[in-house]
Amino acid sequence: MADSSTPVAPNFETHPDRYKHWQLDVDGAVAKLTMKVDPHGGLRDDYELKLNSYDLGVDIELADAIQRIRFEHPEVRAVVFQSGLDRVFCAGANIPMLSSSAHAFKVNFCKFTNETRLYLEDASANSGIKSLAACEGTCAGGGYELALACDRILLVDDGSSAVSLPEVPLLAVLPGTGGLTRIVDKRKVRRDLADVFCTTSEGVRGKRAVDWGLVDAIASRSKFEEAIDTQAKALAAEGADAKRGPGITLDPLTPTVEEDTITYRHVTLKLDRAARVATLTVNAPESDPPTTGDAIQAAGADQWALRCFRELDDAILRLRMHHFDIGLVLLETRGDASKVLATDAALEANQDHWLASEIRLHMARVLRRLDVSSRSFFAIIDEGSCFAGSLFELALAADRSYMLEDDDEKVAVQLGALNGGALPMGNGLSRLQTRFFGDSATLEKVLGTEGPIVTTDADDLGLITLAADDIDWEDDVRIAIEERASLSPDALTGMEASLRFPGPETVESKIFARLSAWQNWIFQRPNAVGPQGALTKYGQPDRPTFDWTRC
Amino acid sequence: MADSSTPVAPNFETHPDRYKHWQLDVDGAVAKLTMKVDPHGGLRDDYELKLNSYDLGVDIELADAIQRIRFEHPEVRAVVFQSGLDRVFCAGANIPMLSSSAHAFKVNFCKFTNETRLYLEDASANSGIKSLAACEGTCAGGGYELALACDRILLVDDGSSAVSLPEVPLLAVLPGTGGLTRIVDKRKVRRDLADVFCTTSEGVRGKRAVDWGLVDAIASRSKFEEAIDTQAKALAAEGADAKRGPGITLDPLTPTVEEDTITYRHVTLKLDRAARVATLTVNAPESDPPTTGDAIQAAGADQWALRCFRELDDAILRLRMHHFDIGLVLLETRGDASKVLATDAALEANQDHWLASEIRLHMARVLRRLDVSSRSFFAIIDEGSCFAGSLFELALAADRSYMLEDDDEKVAVQLGALNGGALPMGNGLSRLQTRFFGDSATLEKVLGTEGPIVTTDADDLGLITLAADDIDWEDDVRIAIEERASLSPDALTGMEASLRFPGPETVESKIFARLSAWQNWIFQRPNAVGPQGALTKYGQPDRPTFDWTRC
Repeated sequence: MADSSTPVAPNFETHPDRYKHWQLDVDGAVAKLTMKVDPHGGLRDDYELKLNSYDLGVDIELADAIQRIRFEHPEVRAVVFQSGLDRVFCAGANIPMLSSSAHAFKVNFCKFTNETRLYLEDASANSGIKSLAACEGTCAGGGYELALACDRILLVDDGSSAVSLPEVPLLAVLPGTGGLTRIVDKRKVRRDLADVFCTTSEGVRGKRAVDWGLVDAIASRSKFEEAIDTQAKALAAEGADAKRGPGITLDPLTPTVEEDTITYRHVTLKLDRAARVATLTVNAPESDPPTTGDAIQAAGADQWALRCFRELDDAILRLRMHHFDIGLVLLETRGDASKVLATDAALEANQDHWLASEIRLHMARVLRRLDVSSRSFFAIIDEGSCFAGSLFELALAADRSYMLEDDDEKVAVQLGALNGGALPMGNGLSRLQTRFFGDSATLEKVLGTEGPIVTTDADDLGLITLAADDIDWEDDVRIAIEERASLSPDALTGMEASLRFPGPETVESKIFARLSAWQNWIFQRPNAVGPQGALTKYGQPDRPTFDWTRC
Repeated sequence: MADSSTPVAPNFETHPDRYKHWQLDVDGAVAKLTMKVDPHGGLRDDYELKLNSYDLGVDIELADAIQRIRFEHPEVRAVVFQSGLDRVFCAGANIPMLSSSAHAFKVNFCKFTNETRLYLEDASANSGIKSLAACEGTCAGGGYELALACDRILLVDDGSSAVSLPEVPLLAVLPGTGGLTRIVDKRKVRRDLADVFCTTSEGVRGKRAVDWGLVDAIASRSKFEEAIDTQAKALAAEGADAKRGPGITLDPLTPTVEEDTITYRHVTLKLDRAARVATLTVNAPESDPPTTGDAIQAAGADQWALRCFRELDDAILRLRMHHFDIGLVLLETRGDASKVLATDAALEANQDHWLASEIRLHMARVLRRLDVSSRSFFAIIDEGSCFAGSLFELALAADRSYMLEDDDEKVAVQLGALNGGALPMGNGLSRLQTRFFGDSATLEKVLGTEGPIVTTDADDLGLITLAADDIDWEDDVRIAIEERASLSPDALTGMEASLRFPGPETVESKIFARLSAWQNWIFQRPNAVGPQGALTKYGQPDRPTFDWTRC
């Protein structure tokens, strides 16, 4: 995508010392994240980030902050989101940035911001880190959607501060960062009130915002700081029992980036640009894992389970946002399966240890990032591979898996301590439950396996897509790759999004399905993005012109 | 939408005597629906319906046939779908028709065909009318999706007959008539096998089709007829206990169609084309309903509960497919609420009577058609209205409801026997459950009400969106209408599709959300519909050209 309006290769790594837009202050059990977006600090210089509006760079900092709170400041039990500007909480995603971005960038930008907000909810649900949005002035669009991802929303009651989702009336697009889903599914705002709210550009303020369930509480301007303090302390007290810490330091990943290869310590991403195929190789630990809470604590960010999945996460994000032309990713693993399984077992055995728990939750988030990545994934299970335990989840997350049937039965996959449900998908099921959805007999049989599962057995159990012997292997895999890479990327995106999520839906899965798919559709429609569309015309003197056809 | 490629105003009413494409033969408990599409019988004359491919006209006949089997041939317990062509079951939706149709038509065509297939499943689940797809030769795309909607799929095992979903590899669009959802969610085909299947244009045949769960059984060519007979009889026996019949005759609706008004016996649709607003008025019964099974049987198609909802269904379809520019529909009711409530009560009291049951199930289907119609609906609850019982479901289905607060408290709404769950939405919940999703206390309070609920009480209970007194009423309603009609139709479609379905998802709701929204997106993408797109280039000598950007 050589579109000139696309930012060149954003870096997904950052650090509070380098934040341009957020300030992280930790004071005991309460952290404050203050948003004060630098108008001239955008990823591109052709838009200004006014009124705490954000671009991808702002959200990368936010994602980093949430991650660091979990690992570096585990004593934090409540996070307060507040603004460093006067009478503006956050105006949402920057409109000039959106309207000048290519479609694929818009789609992936929204996906990343959705993930950031889901991670905030994950921190609340699984680590007891509660969050409070302290809103005053303008809390609009993506700004209110950030508040919706918090456990509580406090709004100044001053006759003008309001929460709003003005996307439909002002921009002819959706509140697509979870807004539509969260108001009715999470906050359970009545659907007709939600309809009124989402079509009222000025939003709702004061007591009505409380009555409708849009915010949890209001406070006068003079009592606002006091209310923030009280509520933050109350939230922090909700989970105060858990013993967490001391924090560890998340060191930089600093991969070596060459023309066609990105090399991390445990992960390598190789690009075959001509074929539009990448190979993502994940290496097993080279040494035995720490097996006690103290040892896990001592190993910190250096331990494989954390480092490797952080690298994998970064590689997935680079694939998504730097390499739009890569349609197919081959997932490979290399190394000693027993060391992966020992790592999983140690994390499971120490699940009450805060860091073991955080590492496992992080693994789950990275795998969910893979689940919703719009690339085809084929797992290649060959000689030297180690698709075992948490790394077997890669094969289960893949659209297909190809497994070599070798004469001496060295090639095998294996289940471990984390495959039973510790790494859930966004639909709330484990990948094995999703794979055998509606076939509990096979699921039980699979969960009952012990030790390495060689190719013929894996095939019989339905754990792989296709087994091929030495003679057919190369041709089978090569042809499958070529065929996949020849298909329409759009059709594959829609197909994969449908086939990967059988069974129940959750707020998370609904955001990436019902909501995002509709938003993507609207992001293609002339009424939004055409030369006379509302997104294009926003801020200009003349009004948009609509085609009134209802689809 | 003045697109010349759009068929002019298809008629949604038909009769077996006039079928061009299907033949309905009833023999005791087994009906046969034989598909033999007239290549020159399409709704437009610029495409040929070769190989049992279908257009909207073919599907209107199918929908009619399923409806008539339920009401006119209630003795039928099993329906066999078979082809009248040699070695072709059905090739799916006609590609030249699709590729030359306007976007809004494509979207609404797919919605209608999805509803037809869901109605087949509704007949199975709720009326015990099982279905068998007897497939031979080509059973591709929409043809296999029709089979997927049946209870059982039988495939000839002759080395060439295959089921397939070739949309992704051949056309760069999705199997969007439920295919992707039903293979993994209904038939529970493993997601990786589904991935292989959906990217293999030639499909899967014989034993592999059984092993993968794509079909239920295979039979050699010589044993095919015998297998059909055996399986049809077995299916018919599954529900043979129920006493159903005698059938009634569904007489034509024959509305009076004028320039801006369509008048049925109980329903009127008035179009204000300049304002892009329609008013859909539903009138209560004028006489007391039949209250016994015998009386319901005797009243047949003439009784209000059936006639009125058949008319409502036809009006919704006309709105969808004849009047693309109408963005907002005002729902009005007129007449005696007590007669609506008495009708509901009679249907509930006689729920074991086959016709009372069928009428109630039909009401539910019509209301579900409204739920997924991409138009804004405002219920106008004013003097003379009768939003009670089943007609109150119209207000609950609406995006908003406006209720007049009159001094003498004549305006009221009222719950009845069918509001508690007898008319479920596609998400499996009643409209009241959906409205008060997560607020069971209010739901119980509402369900406990007795008698008319006047405006202030309805407002307090959360049963309406906005109450306005005589002084404000006209302005409030007028401004709301004008504002709604000014918003982008696309943004409203996406917003309404998101807000109308909080809570759980089902196969049905997933088809209209995850699957259809992705398909609509793809129907906008140049890789499918652009001048070099696969849908455009299908059947032409040169191959499509893709933009390889992954979104």
